[in-house]
Amino acid sequence: MKAEIIAVGTELLSADNIDTNSLYLTGELNKAGWEVRRKTVVGDDVENIVDAIRAALNRSKLVISIGGLGATEDDLTRVSAALALGRTLERSEEIREELLIRFAARNIKMNENNVRQADVIDGAEVLDNPYGTAPGQWIEYDGRYIALLPGPPRELKLIFEMSVLPRLRVLPGSRRMISKLFHITDITESDLDARIAPIYTAYPNIGVTVLAGTGHISVKLSEWFHDGENTAGIEELEKKIQAELGDAVFSTSGETMEEVVGRLLRESGKTLAVAESCTSGILGMRITRVPGCSDYFRGGVLCYSNHAKTKLCGVTAETLEKYGAVSAEAAKALALGVRSALSSDLGISITGISGPGGGSAEKPVGLTYFGISDGVYAESRRRIIPGDRESIRERAAHFALSMLRGFLLKLQP
Amino acid sequence: MKAEIIAVGTELLSADNIDTNSLYLTGELNKAGWEVRRKTVVGDDVENIVDAIRAALNRSKLVISIGGLGATEDDLTRVSAALALGRTLERSEEIREELLIRFAARNIKMNENNVRQADVIDGAEVLDNPYGTAPGQWIEYDGRYIALLPGPPRELKLIFEMSVLPRLRVLPGSRRMISKLFHITDITESDLDARIAPIYTAYPNIGVTVLAGTGHISVKLSEWFHDGENTAGIEELEKKIQAELGDAVFSTSGETMEEVVGRLLRESGKTLAVAESCTSGILGMRITRVPGCSDYFRGGVLCYSNHAKTKLCGVTAETLEKYGAVSAEAAKALALGVRSALSSDLGISITGISGPGGGSAEKPVGLTYFGISDGVYAESRRRIIPGDRESIRERAAHFALSMLRGFLLKLQP
Repeated sequence: MKAEIIAVGTELLSADNIDTNSLYLTGELNKAGWEVRRKTVVGDDVENIVDAIRAALNRSKLVISIGGLGATEDDLTRVSAALALGRTLERSEEIREELLIRFAARNIKMNENNVRQADVIDGAEVLDNPYGTAPGQWIEYDGRYIALLPGPPRELKLIFEMSVLPRLRVLPGSRRMISKLFHITDITESDLDARIAPIYTAYPNIGVTVLAGTGHISVKLSEWFHDGENTAGIEELEKKIQAELGDAVFSTSGETMEEVVGRLLRESGKTLAVAESCTSGILGMRITRVPGCSDYFRGGVLCYSNHAKTKLCGVTAETLEKYGAVSAEAAKALALGVRSALSSDLGISITGISGPGGGSAEKPVGLTYFGISDGVYAESRRRIIPGDRESIRERAAHFALSMLRGFLLKLQP
Repeated sequence: MKAEIIAVGTELLSADNIDTNSLYLTGELNKAGWEVRRKTVVGDDVENIVDAIRAALNRSKLVISIGGLGATEDDLTRVSAALALGRTLERSEEIREELLIRFAARNIKMNENNVRQADVIDGAEVLDNPYGTAPGQWIEYDGRYIALLPGPPRELKLIFEMSVLPRLRVLPGSRRMISKLFHITDITESDLDARIAPIYTAYPNIGVTVLAGTGHISVKLSEWFHDGENTAGIEELEKKIQAELGDAVFSTSGETMEEVVGRLLRESGKTLAVAESCTSGILGMRITRVPGCSDYFRGGVLCYSNHAKTKLCGVTAETLEKYGAVSAEAAKALALGVRSALSSDLGISITGISGPGGGSAEKPVGLTYFGISDGVYAESRRRIIPGDRESIRERAAHFALSMLRGFLLKLQP
């Protein structure tokens, strides 16, 4: 079934702001069997909101509006929706009382604008908003449905889950979407497509979306099903793609690369230290995003200067002079050095030229070396990473994690 | 004058993808005097695209469509726009020749879908696309204008700048927007509003947008002007807000906090080292985003473990035992220690509890200490930062930069 989302707010029509609430709503609607056919952003203007609601209700079974339910002059969704539906607004004494209590608790005087949050469209069901003052509304109109939800993401999500989803679930004829997600590393987008397109084109009903992240690529399969329909096709395709890509798939559960690496470190009982030159913090930041990482992450050195490389990671001045700071030898020495500096089982290092300056014909911008060592053994990898300074650094941090994953997979029984 | 943007593409109606091209277009349109009245996202479906274009042309002087000009079956913008305008599509022999040359150069055979990129709406001007195969189109229709632009951002931007902006500039009655931007630190959103609202409310023609970032807040003033109109009002308001906020304004040029700090370090001739516990990399990453930072950034230690704090930053086991790793004493010792470990002029440190676990009644999640030292002197600050793990860490890194800025400002003559 078809749904539309209308985001209301002049700020969403500026160059600085974008409606991101609709991503959350789209994901939830899809899972509940609704396809989003159109998204519209309108400003705080009655004529435009009325027009957008009317047009959407003419096309689609479900319309969800976001925002414009607050207490300022600019909050016009309630009055516009009433006009669009040709219904009256009635002030709810019950909501007014609740507002009074909330305002009293915060020692603030309630003014006339605030009271408008108690206005309810004739025939609407009020959707409680435990996180804010503006309740949502749910209206059935000529066999179609419209939900008015507030804009703050925390309020929107809670009301959608508590009050909208349960109402959608009992509507007849609903479908649901089944999705399968692959996070893939160490393959280019064109190689990936060359390998999987011959497989997925045999399944014309299954939608395939390829999204390139920084360093990794995600592939999402999705298909709509009515209750009781056979889902064997998408499961078969999932298995075939997994078999084709093997270890290049690092996650099918949405786990991030740092979560995968954290899990492998935990499973292997190994601890880790990092030496970061050009990335200077991105790798550490990603590893420590994972709560509980203190079990395996010892810390690291931001060795942006040569001084830091020699003083804290024990790279000799001779190595730096002979091979340069951006070299396989320096990468290996950094991995070995940071490992002993922090008494960890494993050391990993990144040293490269992120630009925009500092490149040469021999060592161009993007040239990056990675080192890994378990004390006995040290190896390095070399990559020339395309892109600007920020994406070179992000891709370098991703590649270091991916290399560490490969190392840890080999340790597994 | 009013414009609308229509983004075409089923992928933009998924939970993973959002139209961001419209942010660029909105910024450019605003500067050129166009207000964006509505944004619509429609899927790859002729009926929906036709309907969206027709409705937009009924409301607005200018309509810009993004996407759907490529060579696949799903690229339906050309045929839909022709239907919406009631015009025919004609194959351009000239574009077809160019396409043939491009394909030949890449040694690829051109198929029937590719040739559709040579179809031009009757009466349209063709907008060259140096970066891609699909040209844009510019059509005048009953005193209104529609531009069809390709979706890849690089292609969209170039065509907009080269071919759309010059056409907009010669339309009669155009206005331009003047904007003033403030980046503000160390003030809460409600305090900020309490201080500036009494000032800006006296200027009803000036739009004021407040955007809360992670750690900092941005305020944007904007006003529309016809040619030759007096802009004294917005300049007066800018000065009054600057006077009210003083040093809390860290940038009016769009400079980021790390750029400001980098400039102040460079001006003072001081070098810096960082010790990061809970943020473990975010501060280093931000400092090293700035090209040329090697002039002042010596490096740092990710002291996530106590071992790293004692071994690499010289914090004594006694300090950690007596006061704990999250304490004013540990923060000062870290700042002093990392400074001597890396022989820098200044040392700065962050140690805190980012959660979700690890908090207690005495030391709750969000408690963070910051240290700064120039060798002679060491001071610490304490903050309880609200939010989840990721936002606590990001705000902590911002606060450390802001504290460093305050320290460096005091050094200035």
